[in-house]
Amino acid sequence: MTEIDVKQRILAANESAAQDLRARWRRTLVVNLISSPGSGKTTLLESTIERLRDEYRLGAIDGDIATERDANRLRRHGIPAHQILTGGACHLDARQVAQALEQTPMDVDILFIENVGNLICPTSYDLGEDFKVVLLSVTEGDDKPFKYPAIFAKAEVTLITKMDLLQHVNFKLADVRRQVATLRPDGLLLETSAIGGEGLADWCQLLRERLDAKRGVKA
Amino acid sequence: MTEIDVKQRILAANESAAQDLRARWRRTLVVNLISSPGSGKTTLLESTIERLRDEYRLGAIDGDIATERDANRLRRHGIPAHQILTGGACHLDARQVAQALEQTPMDVDILFIENVGNLICPTSYDLGEDFKVVLLSVTEGDDKPFKYPAIFAKAEVTLITKMDLLQHVNFKLADVRRQVATLRPDGLLLETSAIGGEGLADWCQLLRERLDAKRGVKA
Repeated sequence: MTEIDVKQRILAANESAAQDLRARWRRTLVVNLISSPGSGKTTLLESTIERLRDEYRLGAIDGDIATERDANRLRRHGIPAHQILTGGACHLDARQVAQALEQTPMDVDILFIENVGNLICPTSYDLGEDFKVVLLSVTEGDDKPFKYPAIFAKAEVTLITKMDLLQHVNFKLADVRRQVATLRPDGLLLETSAIGGEGLADWCQLLRERLDAKRGVKA
Repeated sequence: MTEIDVKQRILAANESAAQDLRARWRRTLVVNLISSPGSGKTTLLESTIERLRDEYRLGAIDGDIATERDANRLRRHGIPAHQILTGGACHLDARQVAQALEQTPMDVDILFIENVGNLICPTSYDLGEDFKVVLLSVTEGDDKPFKYPAIFAKAEVTLITKMDLLQHVNFKLADVRRQVATLRPDGLLLETSAIGGEGLADWCQLLRERLDAKRGVKA
């Protein structure tokens, strides 16, 4: 069996597990958050939880190579959070998510899956989510969408994060918008700052609308 | 053949190619730079080239999934730079480096290999380098060494980058120093800013000393 055969088998097994998850989540909105390490996934979730926890039952699954740190941060905001430790693996797969749910059942309205910090490998693995979100912080530079095109093409939503630092760095928003529009013409891009609060109302409104749409609630 | 068998075969083949490279580089210092996307590898190299190019013959190999952008940036500083496009692969391997050198022979004193932006996957692949350098920018957060322990244990040198932004973020240098010292007790950590120039003299001096030591020049 070649390396490519093995990869295809792994992805096929993952797809089957992802479909099982999707079938289970008929009334739960599931969001798969992907970014480089340190782009602000956990900080975004902390702010999101604060804004939505009185309105919805929220839960989180965190993927990391090591440390329970991220799940602990989210638990402090009063939601169930399950930490998956991958050991050395560079992405989450659907079977890990299914196992996490066996250990920590989550009967929630919105489930956030915070993937391992990696702009490349998580892209290929369907976790049964409703949509992928890619985060790009302004401190990472404005050349990233074309350098990592797969995730920016697959993610329905691009969140520019750390907008509060924009004044201190050379980051051309218009360039990033152009790249993302090329890779994902029907995608949505939001400019956010978890510290300043910019864009978070729009982000939370997007989650509300997507959950309503999934449940067949008319706007 | 299982997934693990395949991975072991791949790493064994890589190790053999890396040893061939190492045998070839008896008088060239080779540095393998690894970090998250946007930690400042290319910017560090631009500043390094400016400081060392009158003293040494320098060359670079850049790994990216897509775009020739990084190699183009380095060529503008007057050094040969070969761009490896991995297509979708999340790391460089030694055979790709050997092929790059066939296409762009580099008879240089110091060769920089700028790996694909990824804090995880490049860690396992020996490229025949003298040592690995991991970059961590202050905007990525001070929890990263323990969250991505393998690379901070394998890298002889940790470069904290973007020190000019330290005043704008919550990044505890002492915490990072402690984590790195735990993972790599004999490692060296330098605080740098490619914009402000902080730490670059020490970084360049380290390169001089390592090249001299490799060539048997007495200090």
